[in-house]
Amino acid sequence: MDVVGIVTEYNPFHNGHLYQVNEVKKRFPDAVIIVVMSGNFLERGEPAILDKWTRAREAILNGVNLVVELPVAFCVQPADFFAFGALRILKELGVQKLVFGAENEEYNFAEMAEITKRVHGNFSTYNESYAKAYQRAITEKTGVDVSKPNNLLGLAYARANLKLGSFLELVPIQRRAAAHHDQQLPITSRIASASAIRDAALNRQESVANHVPHLTAVDLQQGKTLSWVDFWPLLKYQILTSNVQELREIYGMTEGLEFRIKDKLERMGPAVTFNDWISEVKSKRFTYTHMTRIATMILLQAKNEDIEEVEQKPYIRILGFDIKGQNHLNSVKKKLLFPVVSRVSQKVAANLLKLDYRAGLVYSQFSGQRQDFGRSPFQQ
Amino acid sequence: MDVVGIVTEYNPFHNGHLYQVNEVKKRFPDAVIIVVMSGNFLERGEPAILDKWTRAREAILNGVNLVVELPVAFCVQPADFFAFGALRILKELGVQKLVFGAENEEYNFAEMAEITKRVHGNFSTYNESYAKAYQRAITEKTGVDVSKPNNLLGLAYARANLKLGSFLELVPIQRRAAAHHDQQLPITSRIASASAIRDAALNRQESVANHVPHLTAVDLQQGKTLSWVDFWPLLKYQILTSNVQELREIYGMTEGLEFRIKDKLERMGPAVTFNDWISEVKSKRFTYTHMTRIATMILLQAKNEDIEEVEQKPYIRILGFDIKGQNHLNSVKKKLLFPVVSRVSQKVAANLLKLDYRAGLVYSQFSGQRQDFGRSPFQQ
Repeated sequence: MDVVGIVTEYNPFHNGHLYQVNEVKKRFPDAVIIVVMSGNFLERGEPAILDKWTRAREAILNGVNLVVELPVAFCVQPADFFAFGALRILKELGVQKLVFGAENEEYNFAEMAEITKRVHGNFSTYNESYAKAYQRAITEKTGVDVSKPNNLLGLAYARANLKLGSFLELVPIQRRAAAHHDQQLPITSRIASASAIRDAALNRQESVANHVPHLTAVDLQQGKTLSWVDFWPLLKYQILTSNVQELREIYGMTEGLEFRIKDKLERMGPAVTFNDWISEVKSKRFTYTHMTRIATMILLQAKNEDIEEVEQKPYIRILGFDIKGQNHLNSVKKKLLFPVVSRVSQKVAANLLKLDYRAGLVYSQFSGQRQDFGRSPFQQ
Repeated sequence: MDVVGIVTEYNPFHNGHLYQVNEVKKRFPDAVIIVVMSGNFLERGEPAILDKWTRAREAILNGVNLVVELPVAFCVQPADFFAFGALRILKELGVQKLVFGAENEEYNFAEMAEITKRVHGNFSTYNESYAKAYQRAITEKTGVDVSKPNNLLGLAYARANLKLGSFLELVPIQRRAAAHHDQQLPITSRIASASAIRDAALNRQESVANHVPHLTAVDLQQGKTLSWVDFWPLLKYQILTSNVQELREIYGMTEGLEFRIKDKLERMGPAVTFNDWISEVKSKRFTYTHMTRIATMILLQAKNEDIEEVEQKPYIRILGFDIKGQNHLNSVKKKLLFPVVSRVSQKVAANLLKLDYRAGLVYSQFSGQRQDFGRSPFQQ
């Protein structure tokens, strides 16, 4: 039986994701599909529109067999680090094939990874001006333009795979229609970018029913949809009451950013919005996404040691499964080196899952739903 | 010319306060009336219903000549410490008489202070069970019941006065009508307790027009009225993202309270209210007010050294004055040992006024009005 992995955010689960799951089933009819999904805070430094339990349920009910959470320490990160955290889990779970969308499915990602093996990033100071330099270096080495976001992510998977002993067969699938950053819901296609769907859902101006499975439409309609607008008062308060020494301890806080972050906010006054503040603190060196990631790290009070602990002590947090996923899990369980967390105890919350637990506490302030204690995986 | 002092919170300025000011004018017709008023966080561990600028303006327009802010380090404290902070400022400003309301104006507060000189409190662990023991000790020594809140406060003024060299003549004025903790607006009297007025104003169920001067009624109608309901999300977030070591650094956090505070909150889930949480963490030893004061200290991230700094480096922060008040200020200015702060510079915000500045930043998140930069005293 094929064991196929997908790395994703499902923010939220839309028709493009469904198309991908169905494509996997077409190509690998007997496959068990394992998804590593970001939790409540995401790669571009923002809260998820719906909580991880809701999104995991959407995935399972749309054909995914097992959903595992990517620890937040890896979620709010640049592509290489994000990919490494996810693939490490997939490897442990016996995944053999990785399916991912790419703007150019004809690229040989494995080869590109081999060629660019010696291009390294300093992930503790992740910043986009580095990202640009990185893209240029890759293009110089491979002759291929990887500036498109899904191609770049594909390369990140390929590089992580190489690092982890090339356990995966890489299966890029041509992305349909929507460009990653399209802000409009297309009229002629049922596939839209996740970000266009979020915009529409958050502003409640347009129906997203044509662009997401029914279940997602209901979740977006009935559930608590969250964004930085909700968490901004907490972040603002945190920055205003922290001193610069405390801010300096936050993961990714380099080159005196703590002064800039605090000073700009105090000067801008109490009515400032999240976007206005980010626009004020970003720069050529520290781009929008760099700053939103740091903003998330401040919000979660994530320090260097919090991230390092997760790097050093991996675990597998189960969010949902169906029978097929459960059977697979049972079949690999005895060989697993990483602890499996299905229910969170006090002890696990205080140790192994410390940062995820804290992120869940913060997220639950607005989602209204507990994220850990008392929650068990969704079972279909 | 008489220089008369009043120590108050004006939360908000009501008919009882107006009666007191008019009573001073009747007894001391030429007096300059100087008020030391708490800022945006108050003795019982709660945010002020209206910001300090609004309340200072109410005071000046109702006949007070000069309003000086009591630093927050002294505001959110038991009576003795509160009184000491306030009287230290009044002494510096040349005040000779202290007027205060008492349930029993016939008490000889100065004598009671003399008799109880050796009854001490440990103010760094202020707690109400101490408070009860303290009241009993006082009653044993003086034969007088000081359990009524204004009598007890009067004794605190008398004790602070004794400590500061008995510079003041104490002038208790019989309190009219409303008991301090009455929760109903009385129909037959135009004087109500501040707490009944706040309740009515916050819930917008009843008009307070009969119980406050016109200006206060307008302020309550048009201004932003704040309570713990507003600040609770910030406090909750702070507790959830702080670890116990960080909580332990907060002023007044003793005997492992940090564990209790954090643990109860996590167990109660995201929907818990401020009052529910306080009810859960309070105990016989740590009463409601003890816990709301600690809650305020956490909200403001006030540490021991923040409080000590203000104790050691007093200052006079001017919130408002009329001509008479300004003339008095000018006449004493040259002799003052404490720095006078009329406008807050970056330097003053970062040093002398650090804690007040931080409290202002927090308060302004909901009042919407800056509390420091760009603000100058109200002038009538």
